[in-house]
Parts: sequence; structure tokens; C-alpha cells
Amino acid sequence: MKAVVKIRLKSGVLDPQGKATQNALEALGFSGVNGVRQGKIIEIELEGTDAGAAREDVDRMAQALLANSVIESYEIEIDGQ
Amino acid sequence: MKAVVKIRLKSGVLDPQGKATQNALEALGFSGVNGVRQGKIIEIELEGTDAGAAREDVDRMAQALLANSVIESYEIEIDGQ
Repeated sequence: MKAVVKIRLKSGVLDPQGKATQNALEALGFSGVNGVRQGKIIEIELEGTDAGAAREDVDRMAQALLANSVIESYEIEIDGQ
Repeated sequence: MKAVVKIRLKSGVLDPQGKATQNALEALGFSGVNGVRQGKIIEIELEGTDAGAAREDVDRMAQALLANSVIESYEIEIDGQ
């Protein structure tokens, strides 16, 4: 079973990496870019077939290690749901 | 209009960051993790309302700057599609 965790900076948190990307896009001639935010996507291959238990496990992983809940929010998909 | 670019390492490309995450999860006591791959998610706020033109623009951005096509693949969503 495959879990996907999307981790984004919370709104209001400065994103210098995204800002640098935006500046680089403008330097390359791309216009009409009003903002860029960069996050992480973590794909986890899990044993087991219980989607509910997998979601709980991955939620604990996100809180313990994957995301910094002070500045980041995350969402979890299990097998695309 | 909002574009989301998901960038993943191609299969077969070593992912030391994902491997380190997997090792850390195991060290924290999470069992049943068969693999971890880490990618990027880039959210771009664009001017304009033409989804087709936006997709073409973002594809050019991905090829020029956002993704390294030698080792990474990407997919583009425009306003969730």
C-alpha cells in the first residue's frame, strides 16, 4: 500500500526557496507569476492492507518526523484517496 | 489560477534523502516501511484565466528550471486538474 504525504509551509510563513524560484522564473523571461511556494512530497511504501491503520501510522510518522508542525501543514493520501 | 508541479525522482535513481527518512522512521520504531521516496511540490500562482496556456507555460518552466529531466519526472495540475 502506498501513502503520499504532501507537506507545505503554512500560509504566512516566509518561503525564501519559493521566492528564489519566482525570481529565477522572472529572470528567465516568464511573466505573470504572482507567487511560488515550495513544499515536499514523500511517498511511503507500506506493508499491510488496512487503509485506516495505514493512515493512522502515517499521521504519526508525519507528526514525529516528516513535518515540522510549527511552520508546516501536511495532508495524507492512501492509495490515491 | 493556480498550478501545482509535482517533481519526483525517476524510478531507478537513488534517493539518499528518502533512504535516510526510511532509516529514521525505523529508528523511531515504525515497522512495515518498505521504501520512502522524496520529491518536491511547487505551487505557482499565475495571472490569466486560460488553463491550456497556463499548462504550456508551466511545462516550459518545469523544463527550463524546476525539474532536472535527466533524473526527475514531473506532472502538472492546473486548478486541481
